Amino acid sequence: MNIREFKDKAISGFSKLTKQEKIEWLISNVFENPREVIREFTEYWHKDETRQRVFDEISENTLTNFYLPYGVAPNFLINNKMYVVPMVIEESSVVAAAAKAAKFWLDKGGFSTQVLSTIKIGQVHFKWTGDGEALRAHMPVIKQSLRQAVKPLTENMEKRGGGLIDIELIDFTDTEEDLYQLRASFETCDSMGANFINSCLEEFGRNLPILLSDNERFLTGKGQCEVLMCILSNFTPESLVRAEVSCAVEDFGLVEGLPAEQFANRFAQAVRIAEIDPYRATTHNKGIFNGIDAVILATGNDFRAVEACGHAYASSSGRYSSLSHAEVSNGRFRFWLDFPMSVGTVGGLTKVHPLAKRSLELLGKPSAKELMQIVAAVGLAQNFGAVKALVTSGIQKGHMKMHLNNILANFEANAYEAERAKEYFLDKVVSFASVREFIQGIRAGAIKNFKA
Amino acid sequence: MNIREFKDKAISGFSKLTKQEKIEWLISNVFENPREVIREFTEYWHKDETRQRVFDEISENTLTNFYLPYGVAPNFLINNKMYVVPMVIEESSVVAAAAKAAKFWLDKGGFSTQVLSTIKIGQVHFKWTGDGEALRAHMPVIKQSLRQAVKPLTENMEKRGGGLIDIELIDFTDTEEDLYQLRASFETCDSMGANFINSCLEEFGRNLPILLSDNERFLTGKGQCEVLMCILSNFTPESLVRAEVSCAVEDFGLVEGLPAEQFANRFAQAVRIAEIDPYRATTHNKGIFNGIDAVILATGNDFRAVEACGHAYASSSGRYSSLSHAEVSNGRFRFWLDFPMSVGTVGGLTKVHPLAKRSLELLGKPSAKELMQIVAAVGLAQNFGAVKALVTSGIQKGHMKMHLNNILANFEANAYEAERAKEYFLDKVVSFASVREFIQGIRAGAIKNFKA
Repeated sequence: MNIREFKDKAISGFSKLTKQEKIEWLISNVFENPREVIREFTEYWHKDETRQRVFDEISENTLTNFYLPYGVAPNFLINNKMYVVPMVIEESSVVAAAAKAAKFWLDKGGFSTQVLSTIKIGQVHFKWTGDGEALRAHMPVIKQSLRQAVKPLTENMEKRGGGLIDIELIDFTDTEEDLYQLRASFETCDSMGANFINSCLEEFGRNLPILLSDNERFLTGKGQCEVLMCILSNFTPESLVRAEVSCAVEDFGLVEGLPAEQFANRFAQAVRIAEIDPYRATTHNKGIFNGIDAVILATGNDFRAVEACGHAYASSSGRYSSLSHAEVSNGRFRFWLDFPMSVGTVGGLTKVHPLAKRSLELLGKPSAKELMQIVAAVGLAQNFGAVKALVTSGIQKGHMKMHLNNILANFEANAYEAERAKEYFLDKVVSFASVREFIQGIRAGAIKNFKA
Repeated sequence: MNIREFKDKAISGFSKLTKQEKIEWLISNVFENPREVIREFTEYWHKDETRQRVFDEISENTLTNFYLPYGVAPNFLINNKMYVVPMVIEESSVVAAAAKAAKFWLDKGGFSTQVLSTIKIGQVHFKWTGDGEALRAHMPVIKQSLRQAVKPLTENMEKRGGGLIDIELIDFTDTEEDLYQLRASFETCDSMGANFINSCLEEFGRNLPILLSDNERFLTGKGQCEVLMCILSNFTPESLVRAEVSCAVEDFGLVEGLPAEQFANRFAQAVRIAEIDPYRATTHNKGIFNGIDAVILATGNDFRAVEACGHAYASSSGRYSSLSHAEVSNGRFRFWLDFPMSVGTVGGLTKVHPLAKRSLELLGKPSAKELMQIVAAVGLAQNFGAVKALVTSGIQKGHMKMHLNNILANFEANAYEAERAKEYFLDKVVSFASVREFIQGIRAGAIKNFKA
C-alpha cells in the first residue's frame, strides 16, 4: 500500500463525532464482534448521563471508563495523626503491603514527615545575540518590569500567600551559542500551579523581547532576542518532603524468623545496594512509586509529573541511585526518604473527579503540604514492605496467589477449576506449564474427585 | 495522645472485612455524610456482580472503581500499518495532541519503529567472604548448576523461544565489602516476565549457598555465602525500541504561521535544550510519558516499571537528559526516540482486565515486540505535539479551555453559568480571580442578559 491508500483508510474529523458515532466507526473498521464491543463499552458507563459526561470531558475521544481498583490502607500514623489512605492501583499486593507496613510502624511511633521547601520552577528559554555582560547587569531592571507585567496574574496567588518569588538569569552560552534562560521560582500554595506558572511564563516571554529591543535605555551592545519556549519545569528539587521511621533495633523482635539485629543489618545492606547499583536502584525506586502513584492517582494529581521529578532527583548525583536511605547506628534503626514533588489539593482534577474529591475528604481535606507528607509516608511504607519481603521470605511468596489467578484467567478457568487449582498450588511452584497441566488434568476428568 | 491511644483508634483485621463492612467502618470512623458516601461508592460498581468481583480482586481493600477516561487516537501509521491506539489518561489535551500528531505525520510516511533488543535483567545480590578470584574462576561450573536448577521453570519458556540467556558475576567489593551480584539475562517472549524471572532468581538464591558451601570441590579459599535478595531489575537498557519520524524540511509548509525552516530549527533547538538542561529534560520526558503511560495503562501493563526504566535510562550518561533527539541536516528533519521498556501482551492484567484485553484486540493482538513499537511511536508523537506547541503558539492556548472548566467546577458553576463563562473567556486571560469575578457577576444578576 502506498501513502495515498493509507490516507484513504484514515479518518478525518474523528474528534467531532459523538461518542456513539466514534464507537460505531471503530466497530465498522476495527473490531470483529460488534455486539460484544458495544455491550462492553456501554456497560462501563455511569448509569447517570450527567455524571458520565464529567468523565467524558476530562480527556478527548473518550469511549468509556477504564476501571482501576479504588482501595484504602488504614492505620497510617503520620506526625501523630491517623489516616486511612486512598490508593488507586492495578498491581496486586501494593495496597496490602502498604497496610501491613503502616500497621508494623504503628506501635513504633508511626511516620514522621516534614516539608523542607515548596518552591516551584518555570523557565523561559531564549536566544540573545547581544552582549551577555550587559544582559546580566540589567537583570534587576528586567526583573522589575517582568514582575510588573504579571501583576494581574499573581495578585490572587499573593492574597493566598504565594506568587512569584524570583527570576534568575542562567547562561548556557558555553554549551550552546547565544542560549540563555530565565529561571523563575514560584510559591503556588495548595494548587499544583501548572496553569498559573505557565501563564506567568508566557507573559514573561511576550515582554522579554520588547524589554530587550528597547536596548538603548540599558544595554551597551545591540542584539536580537528570540524566545524559544516558556514552560514550567517538573523538576522541583526545592519542593521537597522528608518521611522517616525509626526505632530501637531490639523493638523489631523476630521479623519473619530473623533476629532483630540481623534483620536491621540485612535491610540497611539492601538499601545500600540500591544506593550503589543503578540496576537495583531502578527497581527499588519503582517500589516507592507503587505507593506514591497510588495516592497521587486517588487524589486526582498527575503521576507522570511526580514520576519525572522523583526519578530526575534520583539521578542528580550523576549516578541513578536510591531515593531512600537506611542506617543502623548505636542500636537504632532509621529509614528515610527525601522526595521532591509538586501536588495540589485545589485546582486540576481535584474537584472535577468525584472520587478524587472524596479521597481528599477521606484524608481530612489536607493542604498541599500535608498531602506531600502523606504521599511520602506511603512511598516509604511501600519501600519498607518490599525490602522487608526481599531480605526475609522473598518477593514471590506474596505474588504467587495473584500470578496463579492471572494464569487461570488465561485458561478461562471456571469457578470450580479455580478453587481446585488454588487448593492444589498452595504448596507447589506456580508456573504457566504446571497450571496448564493441572487444568488439562481436571478437564480430562483425571482430577475429577480431587479434594484438598 | 500517646501511642497507646492511637492504637485504640486503629483497626485490626480490616482486610478481612467484606467490602460492605469496610465501607461501613469508614463511614462510622471517617466520613461525615454516610448516605452520600455509600451512594457514591456503590454507584461506581459494575452492575454485574461477577464482573465487579474481577476488579475487586485485582488489588486489596477495594471499595469501588476509580474511573479513568478510556479514549482512542486514530490515524497512527506505524511501519506502514494503520492503528487506532487506546489511551487511558486523566490529563486533558494528551489524547488530542497524540491524534493531531498522528494525523500530521500520516501523509509524511508515518512513524518507523524497530525493536533493537529484548533482553530482561534479574539480580541475585549476595555476600561472599571467601576468595573472589576462585569464585570468578568457577563461574562456568556454578552457571551450569544454576541453569540445571531452573530447568523445570524455564522449559516452557524455552518452547516459546525464550528462557535464561546468561548469568554474569558482578564484583562490587571495591565499593562494599564482600558484595557480589549474579546478573542474569532472560528472554521472556510476549510476557513481561516478572514472575518467571523472579521465580528463577529465587531458585538461584536457594542453590547458590549450597554450591558455594561445597567449596572443597572447586574453591581454594573457604568462605561464607549470604544471599541478600533475589529480584528482577526494572532497568532493561537492552530491551530497547526506536521510533522515528522524518521528512524534507520544506514538507512542513507553514506550521502555525512559522515558515518550514524556521519551525524545523526552533524544534531542533528546543530538543537540544532538553539534552543539555536537566530542568527542561524532566518536563520534556514527562511529555513523552504522557503518551507512553496512556497506552501502557490501556493495555494492562505496569506504568511504574516503564517510568522507572525510561527515566533511569535518561540519566545513564551521568546527566539527566532528553530521551528524544532531533536533527536538521541537508534539508531533512529527523526526530527520534530510543526507549527501553519491558511490556507484555500475555500474562499479568492483559487477560484479566476486560478493557485491557479489548485494547489489545483494538491494536490487532500485537506481540510484545509490536506493542513496544506502538508505545514508542505514541511517546514520540506526544513529544512532537508538545514541542511543536511550545515553539509556536505556546502551551497555554490549548490548556486554557480545561483550566476554565476546572475553575468552574471549583465554583460549582451550573450549566448556564459555565456556557456564559466559556463564551466570555474565549479571548480573555483565564485566572482564578477573573473567573470568580465573572461568576459572582452572573450570580449578582449583573451579567443577566449577557450574550456573546
